Amino acid sequence: MRIAELARRGGVPVGTVKYYLREGLLPPGELTAATQAQYGDSHVQRLRLVRALLGPGGLSIAAIRDVLAAIDDPTTSVHDALGAAHHALPTADADPRTEDWAEARDHVRRWGWTVEDDSPNLSLLAGALHALRTAHFDTSDRLLDRYADAAAVLAEEDVATVPTTSMTEAVRHVVIGTLLLEPVLLALRRLAHENASMKRFTPPP
Amino acid sequence: MRIAELARRGGVPVGTVKYYLREGLLPPGELTAATQAQYGDSHVQRLRLVRALLGPGGLSIAAIRDVLAAIDDPTTSVHDALGAAHHALPTADADPRTEDWAEARDHVRRWGWTVEDDSPNLSLLAGALHALRTAHFDTSDRLLDRYADAAAVLAEEDVATVPTTSMTEAVRHVVIGTLLLEPVLLALRRLAHENASMKRFTPPP
Repeated sequence: MRIAELARRGGVPVGTVKYYLREGLLPPGELTAATQAQYGDSHVQRLRLVRALLGPGGLSIAAIRDVLAAIDDPTTSVHDALGAAHHALPTADADPRTEDWAEARDHVRRWGWTVEDDSPNLSLLAGALHALRTAHFDTSDRLLDRYADAAAVLAEEDVATVPTTSMTEAVRHVVIGTLLLEPVLLALRRLAHENASMKRFTPPP
Repeated sequence: MRIAELARRGGVPVGTVKYYLREGLLPPGELTAATQAQYGDSHVQRLRLVRALLGPGGLSIAAIRDVLAAIDDPTTSVHDALGAAHHALPTADADPRTEDWAEARDHVRRWGWTVEDDSPNLSLLAGALHALRTAHFDTSDRLLDRYADAAAVLAEEDVATVPTTSMTEAVRHVVIGTLLLEPVLLALRRLAHENASMKRFTPPP
């Protein structure tokens, strides 16, 4: 297909496609004339991935280059490519105190989860636990275990449904699924709170 | 206790307690001399609630006054007081499109949840579903049902552990528990993704 068709299928203006080509976020097409190139389905997939990383992902151009390099490296496993994307996602508090980080790691070990020692997600958990403690909110192991169980059930099936037709599609699925299902989960939890509060605190009619 | 002791137990400077008294966020103490008042445990509880609403809750002084008025009204049920606090919490996207809102409400009805028609949490869900659709991410009923099930399990137990010793303590628990467990849940989900990805995509050694 020509660049106009690629832009249409990616849902962006032609100028944006040209910009991605210049920045190396899209590989060049196959030249069919001095000023004309042909693009394939892999370009459409790559374009959609770049849109997902830039939009919901909120990644910088430099961070996107790193993720794409991981995908394009033939020695990268799917797990490593997904990890590169996952670890490039923005995190709010990336500098937790040492004791909070150790507590987070201890919980994760207790659940028998395999997680990289330098995972930014350990820092996320450490920061979240610190805020709870500062607010004098009871964070018993039992409470955290409940939340971990729920997270594990969701993650198991999320990962089982990652498409493996192409690395590009897998990474796009993980980035969008990780980020855009987060507000869905939080909204559902608040709605479920409303429903549960109604059941507990409102006398039956 | 005197104002200095109240401030110490609330973890704030005396000047802050005086400010809350002037703003009507704390009821006046019992005057024991022209310039001296005595405060009780209910003042400590109220002070901690105001801290939770201002800090993690991110509520304005005006919104806090509304929540406190609901608590102090003897005709308010626990469910209504919790609802007032819940509905006063900040929401990102409060103006969803009509069809997104209708879709969110249809899902909630399908699960048999009882939720106020003007619940801001319906708007939260509508906005989150809209973002997923915009990103061309499959939001099948089956996927949403999984997430709703997990949210319901968490919410059921969350609400079961709300303390009912005092309305003030109940509201403080709900505000902090709702808001500060959200980043915990998201961090746990991302860690669980790491673990599940390792299991699915890494060959056993």
